[in-house]
Amino acid sequence: MTKTDEDFMALALALAERGLWSTDPNPRVGAVVVKDGVIVGQGWHRQAGGPHAEVFALAEAGAQAQGATVYVTLEPCSHHGRTPPCADALIGAGVGRAVVALRDPNPLVAGQGLERLRAAGVAVTEGVLAKAAAALNSGFLQRMSSGVPWVRLKQAMSLDGRVALANGASQWLTGEAARADVQRERARASAIVVGVGTVLRDDPRLAPRLGEDLLRHPVKVVLDSRLRTPPTARLFRTPGAVWICHGPQAPAGAMGPLQAAGATLLAAPQAAEGLDLLAVLRILAAREINECLVEAGPTLAGALLAAGLVSEWLLYVAPKVLGHDAQPVARLGPFIALEQVPQWRIQASTQLDADLKLLLYPKENA
Amino acid sequence: MTKTDEDFMALALALAERGLWSTDPNPRVGAVVVKDGVIVGQGWHRQAGGPHAEVFALAEAGAQAQGATVYVTLEPCSHHGRTPPCADALIGAGVGRAVVALRDPNPLVAGQGLERLRAAGVAVTEGVLAKAAAALNSGFLQRMSSGVPWVRLKQAMSLDGRVALANGASQWLTGEAARADVQRERARASAIVVGVGTVLRDDPRLAPRLGEDLLRHPVKVVLDSRLRTPPTARLFRTPGAVWICHGPQAPAGAMGPLQAAGATLLAAPQAAEGLDLLAVLRILAAREINECLVEAGPTLAGALLAAGLVSEWLLYVAPKVLGHDAQPVARLGPFIALEQVPQWRIQASTQLDADLKLLLYPKENA
Repeated sequence: MTKTDEDFMALALALAERGLWSTDPNPRVGAVVVKDGVIVGQGWHRQAGGPHAEVFALAEAGAQAQGATVYVTLEPCSHHGRTPPCADALIGAGVGRAVVALRDPNPLVAGQGLERLRAAGVAVTEGVLAKAAAALNSGFLQRMSSGVPWVRLKQAMSLDGRVALANGASQWLTGEAARADVQRERARASAIVVGVGTVLRDDPRLAPRLGEDLLRHPVKVVLDSRLRTPPTARLFRTPGAVWICHGPQAPAGAMGPLQAAGATLLAAPQAAEGLDLLAVLRILAAREINECLVEAGPTLAGALLAAGLVSEWLLYVAPKVLGHDAQPVARLGPFIALEQVPQWRIQASTQLDADLKLLLYPKENA
Repeated sequence: MTKTDEDFMALALALAERGLWSTDPNPRVGAVVVKDGVIVGQGWHRQAGGPHAEVFALAEAGAQAQGATVYVTLEPCSHHGRTPPCADALIGAGVGRAVVALRDPNPLVAGQGLERLRAAGVAVTEGVLAKAAAALNSGFLQRMSSGVPWVRLKQAMSLDGRVALANGASQWLTGEAARADVQRERARASAIVVGVGTVLRDDPRLAPRLGEDLLRHPVKVVLDSRLRTPPTARLFRTPGAVWICHGPQAPAGAMGPLQAAGATLLAAPQAAEGLDLLAVLRILAAREINECLVEAGPTLAGALLAAGLVSEWLLYVAPKVLGHDAQPVARLGPFIALEQVPQWRIQASTQLDADLKLLLYPKENA
């Protein structure tokens, strides 16, 4: 059976996904070169600074790229970044047609890659499997288009929506399969974000444990208005940079020891309660953070939900009942009518051993 | 391909399930007669007082029952109840073999049906698809073996485990598909049970709305220590009997008007808070209630969960966030260690349009 554009693009997407944990802050991109219906080259982008997907695929195709069709999951770049423009490479190789899932919203590209191809006589098809391609790079796309990272709120809760007993006990609410899944969600994140309360209470490592070497480590971000993070915290001794976002009233005396421990301190404006979260997200985006995995307690979760800043909500639900005095998944409200409450859309529900993983999106994006 | 015992029993179970809404207080039973690998008779029990499944199946088989194999989802009865013993009917028809999914725990049967068949020279095989057969009649089996009904706790809640806003607003939390599913859960129940708080607040109809005639209507049971149910409540005007369980301190003056409205009053002992729920369940079982669908608010749900009286929990989860001051799904606790909390097993999770239906069993029954 003849393969369609979608078939080849699906393969390119599968290749792109191999860079899920390593391309950051670059997007994950895959490319396939097809000559007379036969795949003659494949490539994916592995790491920022390294060759783009198209370069690998063209190299594998060699002379067969002449007159071939190239499938790329993101518009080929048109600018000289850390590497020369891929659009030029495709033109130079003599490809006859380019099929592109998605335009690159990076203002340095933004359609110019496609223009360049068309000007050189390359036939261009856009929009093949665009939705899947966008999902793979939701963070990069959101940062480029709106100046804030993709915020993936991650929480573990009981059936009755509680994250910890009244006394704080929460280890281990979910089972091993759910916890292993969290490690993978951490590995793909540009940054893992927590409130200082979590640091003070749990002293977390905040680094993915995956049993394999990572090419890149997520940044560990602490939201800490008054710089209460102890310089002895465990997160200073795990792989990955530590950034602490603090408010204008943070004591200057706390800064030296934290910097000595390795922290980068980022000043952010204060809101009524805690930091101005939108401002914090803009600061993170300016530092090339695409995807934040926010491992939030009730207060931070409630603040993000109330501000409409959550792009995606991962809820790991343990089939337990913690009772009505236990800590809520989100401090939010009060609401006086059901029409007011935040509404979500269940994109997927997956059983992970005894637990359930819910993937949710804000309903307005349904 | 030759059909196996399991194949024919699966058919018998499918037949039995046709009585899901109508056989109560009898169990749902199906029967298939097979001669030389060919189905020659099928039957299912439709309504208490009417013929049993075996009778229908034998009638259809006629003379071909001679030497045939009969598949029955529950042990054929051996006693003269409202109809003559089915074991005798099978023997009289000359069947050669009986395959039975499950013994009947009814003390009037309890293996004697099988004994009778064996004594007459009928080969007997037990335990084929026993688990599925038990699931179909969990209420009947539990009532017979332990003297309490199967308690199916049904609640609709938000993602954050809330059943209503602080001001009580809860209509409509879930969508149409979930609400239609609740009607089917109501139709199969022997009794729909609510606390008087629900009656006072919502004035519910408590009758299944299915768009078709039901042969039998669930009993509507109100747990109402002090007989606060208004004789004008809507549930008196919908199909099905009304039983009100009250405590020893109920005002005698309230009894006449409620009885005049059509209620059967059932006296039950009082517990520290509300009625003694185990005693109430025993009273219901003594009145041949197999399956209770308890449509509980936070207090009743918490009491049932704390007492370990919930056989099965149906949670309809609407992807909304009601906030931390909203009403909890269960008033329960406090717990001081995660080892203490009630643990459940997710048997199934099903998406019903925007909502999620979780079917849960107590973990110890896993």
